[in-house]
Amino acid sequence: MSLVVVGTMAYDSIKTPFGQRDWALGGSATYFAHSASFFTKVKLVAVIGEDFDDKDLGALRDCGVDTQGVVRAPGKSFHWQGEYGFELNEANTLDTQLNVLAGFDPQLPDSYKDAEYLFLANIDPKLQQKVMDQAANARLVACDTMNFWIEGALDELKKTLERVDILIINDGEARMLAKTPSIVKAAREIRSMGPSTLIIKRGEYGAVLFHEDEIFYAPAYPLEQVFDPTGAGDTFAGGFMGHIARMNEEKLNGRLLRQAIIMGSVMASFNVEKFSMDRLKELERKEIAARFRQFKRLSHFEDLGGDL
Amino acid sequence: MSLVVVGTMAYDSIKTPFGQRDWALGGSATYFAHSASFFTKVKLVAVIGEDFDDKDLGALRDCGVDTQGVVRAPGKSFHWQGEYGFELNEANTLDTQLNVLAGFDPQLPDSYKDAEYLFLANIDPKLQQKVMDQAANARLVACDTMNFWIEGALDELKKTLERVDILIINDGEARMLAKTPSIVKAAREIRSMGPSTLIIKRGEYGAVLFHEDEIFYAPAYPLEQVFDPTGAGDTFAGGFMGHIARMNEEKLNGRLLRQAIIMGSVMASFNVEKFSMDRLKELERKEIAARFRQFKRLSHFEDLGGDL
Repeated sequence: MSLVVVGTMAYDSIKTPFGQRDWALGGSATYFAHSASFFTKVKLVAVIGEDFDDKDLGALRDCGVDTQGVVRAPGKSFHWQGEYGFELNEANTLDTQLNVLAGFDPQLPDSYKDAEYLFLANIDPKLQQKVMDQAANARLVACDTMNFWIEGALDELKKTLERVDILIINDGEARMLAKTPSIVKAAREIRSMGPSTLIIKRGEYGAVLFHEDEIFYAPAYPLEQVFDPTGAGDTFAGGFMGHIARMNEEKLNGRLLRQAIIMGSVMASFNVEKFSMDRLKELERKEIAARFRQFKRLSHFEDLGGDL
Repeated sequence: MSLVVVGTMAYDSIKTPFGQRDWALGGSATYFAHSASFFTKVKLVAVIGEDFDDKDLGALRDCGVDTQGVVRAPGKSFHWQGEYGFELNEANTLDTQLNVLAGFDPQLPDSYKDAEYLFLANIDPKLQQKVMDQAANARLVACDTMNFWIEGALDELKKTLERVDILIINDGEARMLAKTPSIVKAAREIRSMGPSTLIIKRGEYGAVLFHEDEIFYAPAYPLEQVFDPTGAGDTFAGGFMGHIARMNEEKLNGRLLRQAIIMGSVMASFNVEKFSMDRLKELERKEIAARFRQFKRLSHFEDLGGDL
């Protein structure tokens, strides 16, 4: 089933304790699309500048990604420069140059409009709504956001949240949005804003799902070294939505969501092993399936098999 | 099988965002013993002052805890005063009065010396070694420690670690002891110091087990409100060691350890629901078994059942 993603395509300059890379391919939609392309047909909506390398677009097409919705505008591509400290938990943004992103007005090509699955990456909530207006047949809409919109555009963000099925954010954002340190209370508060399903990402601590009366904890994969956390969240979302679109079940359910979160975690765990999208580009399906099984082993324990 | 614990018995004055309690029963050995008493025969070694309430000793005996090894010394009992902020992650120690603990010289009664399971709570590593000298037949020794000893008595702590089978510490301590932010690297480094099995507690993020080639992630129970985190680590250790002693299997193995960590997490999740030991005192075995099943539901997901 086709999956539309709207977000950014960018070039990043990244410094981590393990090295540095300038003008590396980045952007939320790029990471998402590369990741989801292992599972389903992805249709990409984004804006790029005149400097955007055709080879990078070609690499996406080689993964089966539909780039009809990628518009080239006059000016430079979105550029983000960031640095990670030794703990790799949070990026320190050194510079953001919006460039062509400042005028981004997402338009879905006609061939995208019947998409059943829609992912709105972290962009202006007004634009997220505009995309939903154009994809009225989507049966499942998930979105991401960030502290910038929670602090600066809360009313618009709430209008977006009223209309989405699944919100995927990190724990700091969840606490900020719900104004409480308790993740359980935050989940209740956020779900009352609209999304019936909530996924809270906790970096090296994994992710938590809230769906109906269920709570599910997904572990993070224990890596010796995280080389570059850039794009981990979007890669997670790509694996998550990709799995859901591939399975295309009639109704969203706990079993499917649990597997999808593990799949997101699998994809994110690969992504951080190398700079930029390097690891995703060389990744093979059998590696994905093997790591999924490793996640099972990571969290499995047996019942007590009797009373105390 | 009998389980000996050596640690502190104390009165705590605790302030959390939800209330305050003065001179509440506390201490690592007290929490451990109350928790482990649901699973096995616990033998307690500690020092108390003249002010220690006989009713508090009696309550332990009512749980089947052997208090022969509790020595009453002239002076006051150990007193700890602490405060927790809104995030409840770490206690801010306001005052520590060692009192009788300053002269603690743990002596195992003869009836304790053939104990098969031994837990050394967080005390001076020299004393931990002295206890091991007296329980030469113990087939399994686990211990805890804290930043105070890592910073101030590293050489002695290393002598303790050389002799224990299982180390149970929190993630900040693990990073400090191994001098690396990577939990996987820290685990390798710490296990090279002696303990073949390592458990790293991560508060609201659960716990991680390293044993042979296995890594296991236990989730934390999603509580709306943590009322008082005091003693959570010792209650965890009590459930963990209690389960292992109860099962009394021939050889430590991954299946047993995984269940034991979940049992520790179950007990800790109850403990933080009320002040001091209030929740443990009213706890029933059927509640423990029910929460163990909830942990299973929290982390279970199904295999993919096919290739990608």
